Amino acid sequence: MPWVTIREVALRDGLQIEKPIPLKAKLELLAAIAATGVREVEATAFVSPSKVPSMADAAELAAELNCYPDIEFSALIASPNGARRAVAAGLRSIEYVVAASDEFSMANVGRSTAAATNHIGEIVAIAHDSDTTVEVIVATAWDCPFAGPTPPQLVLDLAGAAVDEGVDRFSIADTIGTAAPGRVTSLIAQLRPVIGDMPLGGHFHNTRGTGLASAYAAVGSGVTRLDASVGGLGGCPFAPGATGNIATEDLVYLLTDSGFDVGIDLQATTAAAEVARSVVGHDLPGALLRAGDRIRN
Amino acid sequence: MPWVTIREVALRDGLQIEKPIPLKAKLELLAAIAATGVREVEATAFVSPSKVPSMADAAELAAELNCYPDIEFSALIASPNGARRAVAAGLRSIEYVVAASDEFSMANVGRSTAAATNHIGEIVAIAHDSDTTVEVIVATAWDCPFAGPTPPQLVLDLAGAAVDEGVDRFSIADTIGTAAPGRVTSLIAQLRPVIGDMPLGGHFHNTRGTGLASAYAAVGSGVTRLDASVGGLGGCPFAPGATGNIATEDLVYLLTDSGFDVGIDLQATTAAAEVARSVVGHDLPGALLRAGDRIRN
Repeated sequence: MPWVTIREVALRDGLQIEKPIPLKAKLELLAAIAATGVREVEATAFVSPSKVPSMADAAELAAELNCYPDIEFSALIASPNGARRAVAAGLRSIEYVVAASDEFSMANVGRSTAAATNHIGEIVAIAHDSDTTVEVIVATAWDCPFAGPTPPQLVLDLAGAAVDEGVDRFSIADTIGTAAPGRVTSLIAQLRPVIGDMPLGGHFHNTRGTGLASAYAAVGSGVTRLDASVGGLGGCPFAPGATGNIATEDLVYLLTDSGFDVGIDLQATTAAAEVARSVVGHDLPGALLRAGDRIRN
Repeated sequence: MPWVTIREVALRDGLQIEKPIPLKAKLELLAAIAATGVREVEATAFVSPSKVPSMADAAELAAELNCYPDIEFSALIASPNGARRAVAAGLRSIEYVVAASDEFSMANVGRSTAAATNHIGEIVAIAHDSDTTVEVIVATAWDCPFAGPTPPQLVLDLAGAAVDEGVDRFSIADTIGTAAPGRVTSLIAQLRPVIGDMPLGGHFHNTRGTGLASAYAAVGSGVTRLDASVGGLGGCPFAPGATGNIATEDLVYLLTDSGFDVGIDLQATTAAAEVARSVVGHDLPGALLRAGDRIRN
């Protein structure tokens, strides 16, 4: 069976815009996530604690991760300084987000896309000096809430710069959940000649109901890595009332039913989604949380 | 641009398990639906009023449909007698549902799949005598809530019988919302040699979040007709708490963004979903109802 790597992002992207929860609650959620069999977990972000208070405990959380030696943990960063903090905290996989849209980049991190791109080389140097892998994630790869549709060439330029600087992985993110399968397939087809055989990931939000369809289209186009969060935890500050990341348990269900091996237990994932719902104290949009698994022999 | 026909089923499948609403409210919803530009609408069902009280006004509703001469209206039936009632009420398109699973067929209409299949010839004769088209819809085409996975051969046998009896269209329904893209593609590939170039439709529920992904996979496999209901109205009595049909506005969004022509206005469809929410008096699961359209230039 073909393999798809699912990276669990509930602890970072899922919790990012939530009211900060205690470290103890995060560790409870992590334990439930680890029990699903998932091999990669985005654990936290080394970013400004004043701007993202829910990630202020990044170093404390990082100190607990060695309890799970079979999981590759990653952290999101937004600057070379964040990379240094992540590496110092023991992370061996970092994700650097660059928005393809200048307008989004300015709003999100206060610098232009070009300025953010210029940091890639320094971040790769910091990471590789410590046996740490770097993934560049392109935010607003399809649409920007401020500027409208993102010209694909902007994503291709970013990919070219990432390849030139020696990053280890590349990923495209539908930050505001507007992409649908047709444009997903199209962008990936244009990207592949630029990135060669570099592992390509997709990050989709289900804001307009299209997240799983886009994720499946991405897999059909050669994406082998997908981000998801248990329960569909997470949202976007620019899309109020919107649902969050694609739900891990729904993705596991879809891919497994479609003949893919993801190495993740569905029931344990739904149980982790229930833990997520409990630690944030509100309902989550994941479909299996409501409907349950089917009756299957 | 490639064309996909969307049939709006909110008035029948959407309202079927709702508490009966007044005819006036149905007509209000119909007017909003007609304003979307949709060309096909499943208007009602000629079935037992005691079993499905929400469809007891089928003939009264049918009498109002000539206000919309540009729309092809259809009605669901479950027996030759239902076909006679539909034709007498002026419908010129009927859908006959046969469950591939014996267990579901017994629970749903009190007869076996074989007995239900045997009625196809009589129903086609009744319909064609009055210039009325017949579509056979296979319920539980992928899974039965009682019997588990449906062997594809049962669907192929039903398709063969439908072709032999001269039906005009054929359709496969994921009645309980358990299918995912891989099995959708596989079943369609097996069906095509049996049905030749007969128009093939797909009917998906979003119960486990996979509905839109399955619908898109179906289109990629040659399905040219999809059922959907505004707001995602509708559910399944056998999947409590589950969401309903795929939402028309979400499907329009996905297909239009992916380069398909559906001839339906997105904003008018979301407005119709708001009318649907209002007439049933509770929230609906459609994603665009919550998130709104993206900002696009």
